Amino acid sequence: MKVGLFTGSFDPFTIGHQSIVARVLPLFDKVVIGVGVNERKQCMFSSEERVNAIAQLYANNPSVEVRAFNDLAVDFAQREGSWFFVKGVRSVKDFEYEREQADINRALGGIETLLVFAQPQHASVSSSLVRELIHFGKDVSMFLPKKEK
Amino acid sequence: MKVGLFTGSFDPFTIGHQSIVARVLPLFDKVVIGVGVNERKQCMFSSEERVNAIAQLYANNPSVEVRAFNDLAVDFAQREGSWFFVKGVRSVKDFEYEREQADINRALGGIETLLVFAQPQHASVSSSLVRELIHFGKDVSMFLPKKEK
Amino acid sequence: MKVGLFTGSFDPFTIGHQSIVARVLPLFDKVVIGVGVNERKQCMFSSEERVNAIAQLYANNPSVEVRAFNDLAVDFAQREGSWFFVKGVRSVKDFEYEREQADINRALGGIETLLVFAQPQHASVSSSLVRELIHFGKDVSMFLPKKEK
Amino acid sequence: MKVGLFTGSFDPFTIGHQSIVARVLPLFDKVVIGVGVNERKQCMFSSEERVNAIAQLYANNPSVEVRAFNDLAVDFAQREGSWFFVKGVRSVKDFEYEREQADINRALGGIETLLVFAQPQHASVSSSLVRELIHFGKDVSMFLPKKEK
Amino acid sequence: MKVGLFTGSFDPFTIGHQSIVARVLPLFDKVVIGVGVNERKQCMFSSEERVNAIAQLYANNPSVEVRAFNDLAVDFAQREGSWFFVKGVRSVKDFEYEREQADINRALGGIETLLVFAQPQHASVSSSLVRELIHFGKDVSMFLPKKEK
Amino acid sequence: MKVGLFTGSFDPFTIGHQSIVARVLPLFDKVVIGVGVNERKQCMFSSEERVNAIAQLYANNPSVEVRAFNDLAVDFAQREGSWFFVKGVRSVKDFEYEREQADINRALGGIETLLVFAQPQHASVSSSLVRELIHFGKDVSMFLPKKEK
Repeated sequence: MKVGLFTGSFDPFTIGHQSIVARVLPLFDKVVIGVGVNERKQCMFSSEERVNAIAQLYANNPSVEVRAFNDLAVDFAQREGSWFFVKGVRSVKDFEYEREQADINRALGGIETLLVFAQPQHASVSSSLVRELIHFGKDVSMFLPKKEK
Repeated sequence: MKVGLFTGSFDPFTIGHQSIVARVLPLFDKVVIGVGVNERKQCMFSSEERVNAIAQLYANNPSVEVRAFNDLAVDFAQREGSWFFVKGVRSVKDFEYEREQADINRALGGIETLLVFAQPQHASVSSSLVRELIHFGKDVSMFLPKKEK
Repeated sequence: MKVGLFTGSFDPFTIGHQSIVARVLPLFDKVVIGVGVNERKQCMFSSEERVNAIAQLYANNPSVEVRAFNDLAVDFAQREGSWFFVKGVRSVKDFEYEREQADINRALGGIETLLVFAQPQHASVSSSLVRELIHFGKDVSMFLPKKEK
Repeated sequence: MKVGLFTGSFDPFTIGHQSIVARVLPLFDKVVIGVGVNERKQCMFSSEERVNAIAQLYANNPSVEVRAFNDLAVDFAQREGSWFFVKGVRSVKDFEYEREQADINRALGGIETLLVFAQPQHASVSSSLVRELIHFGKDVSMFLPKKEK
Repeated sequence: MKVGLFTGSFDPFTIGHQSIVARVLPLFDKVVIGVGVNERKQCMFSSEERVNAIAQLYANNPSVEVRAFNDLAVDFAQREGSWFFVKGVRSVKDFEYEREQADINRALGGIETLLVFAQPQHASVSSSLVRELIHFGKDVSMFLPKKEK
Repeated sequence: MKVGLFTGSFDPFTIGHQSIVARVLPLFDKVVIGVGVNERKQCMFSSEERVNAIAQLYANNPSVEVRAFNDLAVDFAQREGSWFFVKGVRSVKDFEYEREQADINRALGGIETLLVFAQPQHASVSSSLVRELIHFGKDVSMFLPKKEK
């Protein structure tokens, strides 16, 4: 079974993340969305909130599973039997960050990384933007995914 | 059948290209290597030489096919029944170039692009480097792939 | 009178170029579109064709003028009485190119440069893309501007 | 009335910032310098100190106004009746950061962003550098603006 | 006497750092490794641990000295009688960071900066990676230098 | 004897190049300026003109030598007994280009590369700019070095 792993903080999960999942789904039998839980990093949404929001979104899609993890992504990947990380990239900054992660994950666990470009209309949509707008009391629904049917 | 498309000039095909193919092969039922033929671009090796060199390399691997094409990559993809381009990236320059191509291929044909990082030891291996070394009479065998068994 | 100068090869003028002009127009009394004519650079469209296509587009807009020029952009700017170049930027590559040009134009003629980001949906639209598609017989009307009313 | 908005933390306002204001002033009837006040971000200088330092600098220039703001920049812009943000850019990092901000400000409020390159001699002058030098007891007067006459 | 200065947090010193020292050593009579001590930055290893680890590594190499410093690097350089900083660079992000530092160090003290590329196999090795792996209880010995004989 | 190698087309040699040589000279007993001669690349100045212009510039400086070479830089370095290339970098584009070259030169000949940042005031000075200005009949003396005394 081909399992793709899409990991991140997803604080919160945006329409940009949703687009990545939708576009790589045809490649895999299953995509596991791994919600990273890191006690050293302060989040706006709790890990339960983040997992639940994503789980609800894909409730009707048996090919997508959601799980929290709090260890190294490469260990999580091996537990899930996945040999491929999927990462969305929006900028040169993302690109360089992911290169470092990809090299390490290949070296430590033989896991490969597939980069997928954000769609142009999502190039500036990020979880940190959404949190910023929430902080200022703005409506962010345009950046959050609608449940799939 | 899931078909991955790996296109380029491959003038010549290097160990960097070979590494990309090997690492994405588990994702697909078949990887088609598309050798771009462009009468406006002068190559060191003829399209026949380029196709033959790659074909010989994968002669024993039924999951890899090689074909020349002289139209738009997106048309080639549709002919081959592929919904995914695979591209190796070595640098920010590559990244930006591929972003433009990926956007267009998504817009024109709904074809997605998966970027795969060059392995660190191949980060400076390119076809143009190999051609430069050949021009100066150097041994380039260390940059060219050995036939798979 | 505040004159903005928008220079380029415009081979051809795309919806990306049109968007830049529309968005900076409120800053200036007049925007002059300068079509660079360079006998050392081979174009798909003649300078007449390029000037005429743009002139027709803005025929009903007295704030936009179009002119060919074949000398240094900084000399053209001084002739037009403009102290501001406007440039669209789509990528890091564009950014670095324009930095060099801007420094030189400030040093040689005291002309400043304003960078305007391409809109996300135009980030991969370029004249070279349009020429490539024309070469392969594709319909490019979606990348070309419609006449303003 | 054409109003340009130049926003930042200005902790402190440097000769680099001053150069940006001076160079875009001819474009606008008024430039408003917006000092961002963010209780989540610790500054070396209080918002009063920052506003006062800038106000004093432009005391004799009726075209420049200074104001603190503590909401979203796009809301501040609408309050000021400005349709243009002005941003200085020194590096690729700045460029990518501003692209994200510009996209969002265009999407949320229809506000455009004009990027202006730092002059070469200011390319490494930043507020954080000045703070670092102050921390080590260095003379920073060479990086701080002199009052305009 | 030609003294090269290699400064950093070295929290901890990695095989990437070791490679830079080894490759620039032939240029200098002495290389001083300056361990930056910054009370505002929390480190995993104390400054004593960091200095001792490096000192032990080069115990048999009289051309390499190790010292902690807690002031500006440019002041440290002048104290050591060095006119050259040596910096390893792995990415565009490193490159831009070092450009800013180099400009300032040249302006403040007339000290030049030499950039040396990380070797490809070290391109993703960083102190922060090592700390992350230690945090998760991983073996990091493959990223830490062996004592020179 | 420590020999630094500074190679390029130098078509023509600019004040930016001169600044690099002056700043690395204290590191070496001798700096050899290698003028690359490449029959496949069309130059504005002949190799004799380029060598002579540089030789004249350093006529009174016995630590600087100038020579043309028409083979691989790494072979030239070995002939000159040099283990260090010196390269000026102005931009991310330069940085990425030099990384590729440096990796190859290390792999082929064990030659290391030292990058030196252009001084800010030279960041946009390039041989191609000078050629462009000459083409348009401009005075370029401000970009060309004066003879050292």
